Amino acid sequence: MLARATATASATARRAMSTVTEITAKAIVYSSYGDPLDTIACHSYKLPSKPINGKEVLLQTLACPLNPSDINQIQGVYPSRPSLTKELGTIEPSAVCGNEGLFKVLATGSEVSELKAGDWVIPSNVNFGTWRSHALTTSENLTKLPNDGKLSIAEAATITVNPSSAYQMLTLYVDLKPGDWFIQNGGNSQVGRAAIQIGKTLGLKSISVVRDRPDLKELKEELTQLGATHVITEEENSSREFGKTIKQWTEGKPIKLGLNCIGGSNLTNMARKLGKDATLLTYGAMSLKPVSLPTSLFIFKNLTAKGFWVTENIKRIPGSRESTIKELIKLYESGDLAEIKHDEIEVSANEGTEEEFLAAFKKGLVESKKGKQLVVFK
Amino acid sequence: MLARATATASATARRAMSTVTEITAKAIVYSSYGDPLDTIACHSYKLPSKPINGKEVLLQTLACPLNPSDINQIQGVYPSRPSLTKELGTIEPSAVCGNEGLFKVLATGSEVSELKAGDWVIPSNVNFGTWRSHALTTSENLTKLPNDGKLSIAEAATITVNPSSAYQMLTLYVDLKPGDWFIQNGGNSQVGRAAIQIGKTLGLKSISVVRDRPDLKELKEELTQLGATHVITEEENSSREFGKTIKQWTEGKPIKLGLNCIGGSNLTNMARKLGKDATLLTYGAMSLKPVSLPTSLFIFKNLTAKGFWVTENIKRIPGSRESTIKELIKLYESGDLAEIKHDEIEVSANEGTEEEFLAAFKKGLVESKKGKQLVVFK
Repeated sequence: MLARATATASATARRAMSTVTEITAKAIVYSSYGDPLDTIACHSYKLPSKPINGKEVLLQTLACPLNPSDINQIQGVYPSRPSLTKELGTIEPSAVCGNEGLFKVLATGSEVSELKAGDWVIPSNVNFGTWRSHALTTSENLTKLPNDGKLSIAEAATITVNPSSAYQMLTLYVDLKPGDWFIQNGGNSQVGRAAIQIGKTLGLKSISVVRDRPDLKELKEELTQLGATHVITEEENSSREFGKTIKQWTEGKPIKLGLNCIGGSNLTNMARKLGKDATLLTYGAMSLKPVSLPTSLFIFKNLTAKGFWVTENIKRIPGSRESTIKELIKLYESGDLAEIKHDEIEVSANEGTEEEFLAAFKKGLVESKKGKQLVVFK
Repeated sequence: MLARATATASATARRAMSTVTEITAKAIVYSSYGDPLDTIACHSYKLPSKPINGKEVLLQTLACPLNPSDINQIQGVYPSRPSLTKELGTIEPSAVCGNEGLFKVLATGSEVSELKAGDWVIPSNVNFGTWRSHALTTSENLTKLPNDGKLSIAEAATITVNPSSAYQMLTLYVDLKPGDWFIQNGGNSQVGRAAIQIGKTLGLKSISVVRDRPDLKELKEELTQLGATHVITEEENSSREFGKTIKQWTEGKPIKLGLNCIGGSNLTNMARKLGKDATLLTYGAMSLKPVSLPTSLFIFKNLTAKGFWVTENIKRIPGSRESTIKELIKLYESGDLAEIKHDEIEVSANEGTEEEFLAAFKKGLVESKKGKQLVVFK
């Protein structure tokens, strides 16, 4: 995807150079795998100020998040990654970082009818390379989002990963009916918070496991406000005694679905709360420990353990990405889903130095341990 | 099931006592849960020599295995177990041990048309209590097996657990086509040996992991004779380097199914050999360690981990038990499936003391660590 899009961009840029006004685009790139802070660089290159090819679309980035999977991609430990090429004019074969982001259409080629300047678009696939100021691509690589003021830039820029994961895990694996229960760890993660809210709109009841912390009371209140039925600590989760409390809460109804992004003993203890015939979906491993489950859960409680990877679902379930985004837009517009909790780092799309551009993303990498970082282009 | 059958037996016995010749039946019973050697006892009781009630069937046991699940049942750690009752005339509420066995029909009530004296039958459900010399039940609790000399007593007496598990795991979960690969640990277990043979008849290729042992060469030859494509040791299974050899064997074809009865690191290493979108079925935990799987297998290789319990499949998939038995009989009759490897312990159905009867089963319990023990009634 990236290879093709940037090949077009580069060739077009060369052809256009003498006839059309140019834009200086900046992109965060890597040419080898390793610690992102040591590995990423800012690369500037020229783009024409309007598309030459009829199907092209010229974009300016509005915002892009720094997701854990983006970081894993730069580290070289993520199975999905773009090819390293010289298409942007880098000395070493490189790729542009980032898989998720929101773009504004600056101009369209003569054969593009479905998009116009000012429209909001997101990449239709991963490996687009979103940590950049501008992009030149073709319209079939883009998905249009409404730009009518109901969806915020942050909501639109982060719609395809965290809330999409939550929505798909709650709707595509187990036939949950209103009143049914699910349990999740990482309850305060972005996916966890989205699952709480989406679960509530589906009429589901939820138990969210969170780490103990000084402001636990406030966090519990916040998540309850979002729609959590119950919020418990890892300590409560690990107590066999506490299982009785959970049974009282659920009035003996089996918990049908578990969502796991932690692994290790946190998961093992959570899995014990699942009812017969339950499904456990693993979408992360924040503890860096494996999925470890007592054999009896499999044999005698008929547990099914599966993985969830939103990137793969795009391929596996055709149309799932589009239908998920459609549903999420409704939830954002109705106010049932809150904007993702994030910090913003501002950067200029058209001005400033390469050093400033790079510094913004490096700051995001450092801060990403504290919470979701969103680079916003002014 | 047991409760009802023995209630009938006991009531009938009392009514019949003055008019019909009696049989002295012996049964291995337990009235509390614990170490089987300390817990089991022999209980003698009277049965009429022919059924009084029209739907009753009087049985003499031909053979019954001592399965691990029977032992777990007596230990009280098995979720499926019969009620403890006084129906057999025991002082303490008791249950008869054993879930699998072959019986010969001695006599039938006037309303039983589908069975006659001399027919072979097995219990249609678990918790029948098979460690006994005789039983009086009704015909709907029994499944008829052919008694035409093609099926041996040992084959018929053990058809519902080990080979049924192997057959169902290979046929009910993944749509395996001839030429497809599966991998299993416990390759020399009874289920493992059955899976090797059944897999071969289905055109499947298999890799079986076995423990290293002094007579490894002989075991490899034996399993290869049965139909194993490859037999590897736990050491080879645990070597990342050896993964390359396996890829050469499979010519890059993904291994679609894994069968696990061990758990722990043996399983973790085996699971790494599975291909994308594979299914892992766990039916035992001989290492007593959990099912521990790297998160990446779930997220990036789309692994599905499930449990297998033949007892539960009877309920979950109606007709699966009958159709499995039918297929297994064909395989036994064609010679494609060998008699289960076992030791025989002889005991008299009609003669001998309670002590001798009990001693036979205690011997079986002690010897069961070495291999499958089958108590055969002469």
